[in-house]
Amino acid sequence: MTKPEYQPVTIAYIGGGSLNWAPGLMADLAADDRLAAEVRLYDLDAGAAQRNAAMGARFAEVSTGQAARYSVAGSLAEALRGADVVVVSILPGRFEDMAQDIGIPARYGIPQAVGDTVGPGGFVRAMRAIPMLAEIGAAIGEHAPNAYVCNLTNPMSVLTGALFAAFPGIRAWGECHEVTKLRKQVAWIANRAAGAEVATHRDVAVNVMGVNHFTFVDRISLGGRNMMPAYRAFVEEFADAGWTAQPVDPEDEHSRYFEDRSRVKFDLTRRFGIAAAAGDRHLVEFLPADQYLHDPAGWDFGLTPVDYRLRDQAEKAARATALADGTASPVAKRSDEALIDQIAALMGGGAHLSNVNLPNTGQVENLPIGAVVETNALFSGLGVQAVHAGRLPDALAAITADHADRQSALLKAVLAGEAGALFPLFHADPLVAPLEEAKARAMFSEMVAATSAWLPETLRGAA
Amino acid sequence: MTKPEYQPVTIAYIGGGSLNWAPGLMADLAADDRLAAEVRLYDLDAGAAQRNAAMGARFAEVSTGQAARYSVAGSLAEALRGADVVVVSILPGRFEDMAQDIGIPARYGIPQAVGDTVGPGGFVRAMRAIPMLAEIGAAIGEHAPNAYVCNLTNPMSVLTGALFAAFPGIRAWGECHEVTKLRKQVAWIANRAAGAEVATHRDVAVNVMGVNHFTFVDRISLGGRNMMPAYRAFVEEFADAGWTAQPVDPEDEHSRYFEDRSRVKFDLTRRFGIAAAAGDRHLVEFLPADQYLHDPAGWDFGLTPVDYRLRDQAEKAARATALADGTASPVAKRSDEALIDQIAALMGGGAHLSNVNLPNTGQVENLPIGAVVETNALFSGLGVQAVHAGRLPDALAAITADHADRQSALLKAVLAGEAGALFPLFHADPLVAPLEEAKARAMFSEMVAATSAWLPETLRGAA
Amino acid sequence: MTKPEYQPVTIAYIGGGSLNWAPGLMADLAADDRLAAEVRLYDLDAGAAQRNAAMGARFAEVSTGQAARYSVAGSLAEALRGADVVVVSILPGRFEDMAQDIGIPARYGIPQAVGDTVGPGGFVRAMRAIPMLAEIGAAIGEHAPNAYVCNLTNPMSVLTGALFAAFPGIRAWGECHEVTKLRKQVAWIANRAAGAEVATHRDVAVNVMGVNHFTFVDRISLGGRNMMPAYRAFVEEFADAGWTAQPVDPEDEHSRYFEDRSRVKFDLTRRFGIAAAAGDRHLVEFLPADQYLHDPAGWDFGLTPVDYRLRDQAEKAARATALADGTASPVAKRSDEALIDQIAALMGGGAHLSNVNLPNTGQVENLPIGAVVETNALFSGLGVQAVHAGRLPDALAAITADHADRQSALLKAVLAGEAGALFPLFHADPLVAPLEEAKARAMFSEMVAATSAWLPETLRGAA
Amino acid sequence: MTKPEYQPVTIAYIGGGSLNWAPGLMADLAADDRLAAEVRLYDLDAGAAQRNAAMGARFAEVSTGQAARYSVAGSLAEALRGADVVVVSILPGRFEDMAQDIGIPARYGIPQAVGDTVGPGGFVRAMRAIPMLAEIGAAIGEHAPNAYVCNLTNPMSVLTGALFAAFPGIRAWGECHEVTKLRKQVAWIANRAAGAEVATHRDVAVNVMGVNHFTFVDRISLGGRNMMPAYRAFVEEFADAGWTAQPVDPEDEHSRYFEDRSRVKFDLTRRFGIAAAAGDRHLVEFLPADQYLHDPAGWDFGLTPVDYRLRDQAEKAARATALADGTASPVAKRSDEALIDQIAALMGGGAHLSNVNLPNTGQVENLPIGAVVETNALFSGLGVQAVHAGRLPDALAAITADHADRQSALLKAVLAGEAGALFPLFHADPLVAPLEEAKARAMFSEMVAATSAWLPETLRGAA
Repeated sequence: MTKPEYQPVTIAYIGGGSLNWAPGLMADLAADDRLAAEVRLYDLDAGAAQRNAAMGARFAEVSTGQAARYSVAGSLAEALRGADVVVVSILPGRFEDMAQDIGIPARYGIPQAVGDTVGPGGFVRAMRAIPMLAEIGAAIGEHAPNAYVCNLTNPMSVLTGALFAAFPGIRAWGECHEVTKLRKQVAWIANRAAGAEVATHRDVAVNVMGVNHFTFVDRISLGGRNMMPAYRAFVEEFADAGWTAQPVDPEDEHSRYFEDRSRVKFDLTRRFGIAAAAGDRHLVEFLPADQYLHDPAGWDFGLTPVDYRLRDQAEKAARATALADGTASPVAKRSDEALIDQIAALMGGGAHLSNVNLPNTGQVENLPIGAVVETNALFSGLGVQAVHAGRLPDALAAITADHADRQSALLKAVLAGEAGALFPLFHADPLVAPLEEAKARAMFSEMVAATSAWLPETLRGAA
Repeated sequence: MTKPEYQPVTIAYIGGGSLNWAPGLMADLAADDRLAAEVRLYDLDAGAAQRNAAMGARFAEVSTGQAARYSVAGSLAEALRGADVVVVSILPGRFEDMAQDIGIPARYGIPQAVGDTVGPGGFVRAMRAIPMLAEIGAAIGEHAPNAYVCNLTNPMSVLTGALFAAFPGIRAWGECHEVTKLRKQVAWIANRAAGAEVATHRDVAVNVMGVNHFTFVDRISLGGRNMMPAYRAFVEEFADAGWTAQPVDPEDEHSRYFEDRSRVKFDLTRRFGIAAAAGDRHLVEFLPADQYLHDPAGWDFGLTPVDYRLRDQAEKAARATALADGTASPVAKRSDEALIDQIAALMGGGAHLSNVNLPNTGQVENLPIGAVVETNALFSGLGVQAVHAGRLPDALAAITADHADRQSALLKAVLAGEAGALFPLFHADPLVAPLEEAKARAMFSEMVAATSAWLPETLRGAA
Repeated sequence: MTKPEYQPVTIAYIGGGSLNWAPGLMADLAADDRLAAEVRLYDLDAGAAQRNAAMGARFAEVSTGQAARYSVAGSLAEALRGADVVVVSILPGRFEDMAQDIGIPARYGIPQAVGDTVGPGGFVRAMRAIPMLAEIGAAIGEHAPNAYVCNLTNPMSVLTGALFAAFPGIRAWGECHEVTKLRKQVAWIANRAAGAEVATHRDVAVNVMGVNHFTFVDRISLGGRNMMPAYRAFVEEFADAGWTAQPVDPEDEHSRYFEDRSRVKFDLTRRFGIAAAAGDRHLVEFLPADQYLHDPAGWDFGLTPVDYRLRDQAEKAARATALADGTASPVAKRSDEALIDQIAALMGGGAHLSNVNLPNTGQVENLPIGAVVETNALFSGLGVQAVHAGRLPDALAAITADHADRQSALLKAVLAGEAGALFPLFHADPLVAPLEEAKARAMFSEMVAATSAWLPETLRGAA
Repeated sequence: MTKPEYQPVTIAYIGGGSLNWAPGLMADLAADDRLAAEVRLYDLDAGAAQRNAAMGARFAEVSTGQAARYSVAGSLAEALRGADVVVVSILPGRFEDMAQDIGIPARYGIPQAVGDTVGPGGFVRAMRAIPMLAEIGAAIGEHAPNAYVCNLTNPMSVLTGALFAAFPGIRAWGECHEVTKLRKQVAWIANRAAGAEVATHRDVAVNVMGVNHFTFVDRISLGGRNMMPAYRAFVEEFADAGWTAQPVDPEDEHSRYFEDRSRVKFDLTRRFGIAAAAGDRHLVEFLPADQYLHDPAGWDFGLTPVDYRLRDQAEKAARATALADGTASPVAKRSDEALIDQIAALMGGGAHLSNVNLPNTGQVENLPIGAVVETNALFSGLGVQAVHAGRLPDALAAITADHADRQSALLKAVLAGEAGALFPLFHADPLVAPLEEAKARAMFSEMVAATSAWLPETLRGAA
């Protein structure tokens, strides 16, 4: 087929002042040779959006294809009108709130490795974020009903669900890169066996199933070859020592705090018979703390202190400012993120397969219909379409369905303003369930109070 | 309608040497004025069946209606052929096995109040009982496909499911009396308010929902009056002190070991907004041990020592022998059990409503289809028909569905002989989940070894 | 239990000027000894309500129990506030509209026996009635959310669905007496066999399944006896000649126009293996016209001319006026309708079983979830609860599900104002489907135009 | 990724003497540059398999890639053992049987255009073919449980379902090329607009939904461009005159008998709002005959006489023999069939998207779960995975679900040997339903008698 040289696309970036995802997308756009992008940055923090627009302009200068154009949108509606693609990457609350999400439970004896998905931290984060995403979803329904919408915000399952709840016709998906590591391990296995660089993670296809950050893989293919047997042998080989592409540098904070030697993944793979796919720091939060979370050192995974996140954020802001004002130089280098390929495929550049988060219509047969689940989906001119993944092993399905049921119920309760329904759901989470009711309720009260500035009126008395 | 004086019914009693249920049914038949019953007792322990037949003959002598006839059947097939009703009340293994079901987990720090439903004890008990019930179900399919089948054996949900799995056309239900106590409390409330005996528990209608031994009630009616508000006030009144019809006698073992002051029921009622219905000793086993089970004294519920069970059983056997040989006198007195009314209704004596266990076809909308659930059912000439109960509150539905999913998976794995699927299910139970995998596996191994004499070949290596 | 002598109940009767159902209910209340009823009649035709109130007062005078009180409500809200029970019995449009519902299709070669359920007549009647019922349902949600609501208005399935769609928490059911005849046949069979009056239809229990007016029965019990074999023999005996309690009087219009010798029922019973339950005149409309509807004489069922309906209505109005002004005398005589027993049971007088119409939560396993289906339901202090009925034979399930699917879609399209979705649904009805599209569309246009005064703006251009 | 030059694949071809599909696959293999194929031909007619093996060897000689190897397998088991891919392309019965499938109904006034999918012909064909496919499915479960299995045999939905019923773990799909024509029309539209050859049908992506031979398309993309508006305009333009790539040659039998000017497709597209995708000759058989099937001339579609099929078959046999014995020359030319690309993708050559037939796990949300439906599926190293397609318009969903429900019930009844369940299903087909029961039953008797040699014992008395 004869194609236009560059496919035009208008992207509305909600949370356009973002320091994590926005610079990555800018680099990917600079390295891309398929799209002619116009990017509108919208952020409640207008200054951050302004800075990012300037940074974007610098990335555009080094573009290897058609230079993207960056602008700041004055309102959500302005950003959305005429957009082909909407990216939602907001911070629900501030890092100080996240510090409370983790700090308060810690005082009650509940450890959390990340605290943004499930457990007490994920729950309260969802309480403040659901209304935000619902508002964005409704605005999309009004101003850009045909746009494709990528949610990057956590807790992924619940917030992607919030978009669909607010505007059922939305063409949205939730995007997360957790599974890349497993694909890199498979490429490493193949390359070691061949004694040569014969494959990269992009050659590895995996059949993903689960809910975001608690994902599993029951089929692995590399060029048509079934890699499950080789992966199982790899798991046995590294189960005790753990595996890492490069050694953890104890001097390097990031390396230390985000450590993931896959020992939890390997252990879960042995336990359940199919490969655990998400990062160890996420996986552990879905299970009773006594299994893994109580012993990070024993299982070689890191806990990320929020004060580190604050310092890291400050560094990233400095870097962004330097890029924006020209004191640092941008590089047009492709990241590992799939978003750029997803956009290109939707706009017409063929078919692309990614694992993403979508409401379950049966792609995972033994998870609840309607819950947001993670599986592969096909991105093409026909849109974003879930690919049938099959069935989780029964024990894993039971554990996962339990989380999915509570996530769906949490979303419903927040949207309906049913404050009274929240605590029983909070208490039923496996990290919270061991607490006696009085203690759990006290903890919930503290957490709700700490974040109440972000909550709708109806939920402030939830505890 | 003109009716026959007594409705003839042939009852096959599988486990006919039973000391718990059989004497009660005999007393109920003696006190009944609707049925002309022929009862065939079948038991692997032929002597026990013989003793019970003799005891039955004594009960028949004091019958207020048509005397029932009792005989011993030489084989399962002989018992079943021509039966209108089959009662299944067997002991899966011996009390020594039950002692292990509780004793081994106790050594791993896992308390159990009863140990026959969920938790490690319920799981292993199911492993040995499922093949037995499947065999009985298949025999019913062959010899008495149109008979009505009442299962009284625990774990109720799983074993009732086993009957349906073995013979999908079976007209079976699982029968349990746990909810009677709540109905008695409601009558007590009404009588106290009236200052007179105006109602008994038989006047109280409750809408039951859940899985056996973890049941809840969202509607209570007494003569058309909504009793939920009065019940909630009662719960608040007695939440701290607990409630009991008569005081616990510390000298009386049974009273002590089966103590249930409803404090757990009351606490769950406050937590979830609808009334908890099963006994405290059962309810606590469905939740993490740290919530209630770790502190029986604090929550005023008894733990039943297996050595007590052994002594109690010996006493009952002595009593049965005394009744059989005429040294004790039987009394034709109606028990609280519903079975006699269920049989009478099925055989044509009008309609009767009971809470029983049946595969979910939607009677509980937010529990999994196919799982065995407990709700009201209508007994009549049309058979046993589940009555639509509605929806559990979401948090409760998630907790209950998790158990139901694992019960269905356990049943499937045992029937398919998939030994490898068992441990992950065992470990996912909330009482076991806090254990690290190695410890949980060691415990499972011990338990399986202890009961292996009762297991089919395929499952002996399950651990 | 000690009970009050009469159970007080406040009934809001919407369509209180009704000439069909209202007088019957008044007679039933007069003959009842359980209820102390206050009845508020509300009708758009205030004069009719006034006349009926006067008539009600006359019935009250001859009451054998506690005399009911009748009043006219000035508004829907006034009628509803404080009501325990709401009865909805309205005429959607006038008889002239019904004449068009039948007359226009007749000109296109499509016969209809009744024209108020499915087929072109039922479809267009639903189009005008759904908004009316939705308005009533919403008003109930506002003014009487806890009331029990009985819908008597056709098309029953669609309109009962409209109440639930407008107010999902509604405690409603759809009431229809079609199945009584089959129960009378069974009593007749038993009495003939006994050579004496041993049973009435009230002693016969039937397990009903299907959608309103296309209902089947797979189990029949009389005092616990399975009557299916006897009923099948009866069907064979009367398949050719037909059966009727008393001979059709060719001089009597009603007898002629409502003739139903059960020959269609018998033929369907032979074809599908379970007993057809609704009246022949209704059953035939669910199947292609070439099967039965083209030949009423051949199958001995009557077609009801609308001009007869008009004359009949005039007679009934005259009778009502005579009763109201005292020139005729009311009789406190129990009708065959179940409504009075349903109300008594809901208000606390025990349990009552009736076949009624409710959203399917699984009571018919192989009809679509959410569609309004007809099965037995239990009426008690716990409310109206569907009783599990089982599965239709596959071929019958396919035919019935097809109607149920289109009924659900019709309801959805009317409520959403999706005019464009209507014609394809109209055309897919088996009575309409044989028409080529152009002809079917012309017919639909005519019918919509004829009834457009009753349609919401959005639907007037439906054709 | 570094890849092997040619991917080895062993193909078991069941029905390897086939004259329709086998030569096409041979040509495709000869034109392919990805696979190194070993093809084992198995046929009850060993001579035909022998002839095809010789023909295959001639195709291999002209191969542009790695020459395929062809052999004859002496038994089904021998063909299957070690196979990577199984192709099932059998003729259920002979053409004489097909002549009866069409001829008998014709005498009863029921026209059929093809008679191999639904309607009386499709039904009886399914009755004889289901046991054959079930036998093949069971053999695959025993001898090649991990093989990929492509069914090419009609009736596609029912027979693909038979494979899954016989061996639930089968990795099968049903393959049909009906939708290609619509994709060619879209390319034609684009090329006409561009005034140049800018696209072929392979550039056109369509979102397929429905059951085989009654398929629809709600989204069309060409290089990311939404082509639905252009397609709708095209439909309006050619609705009356019809459209055809090249004019029908009245002298050419094939052209005449397989004529399809898309006028039915266009009419259905206008009626239902989304594009009809299957061929007119198939589509018409799913709807009452009075809509289209009664008037082939008026709607410009051909009826294929079975005597033509016989002559055509003879010609093809002669051609095959000529190719086999060297008197004709094979050409290595790629056909329009997707099978070769599906095999290449499964064996590791990347991802391929095709519309195929698979059990519904929710890919079409408003068709019954478990029914075999047609949607896009992804072929890759991970297997054959259905892609979520969405929802059919409600009216179309009702019509399609009705067929799907009956297809599932037919399959179940044949496999269970429930002869009595068949006639009611047969009669409920829209082509048969207008017949009165006696006539329909007589027709069914004749058809069953005519094909009884192919039926299992249990079904011979079906009528």
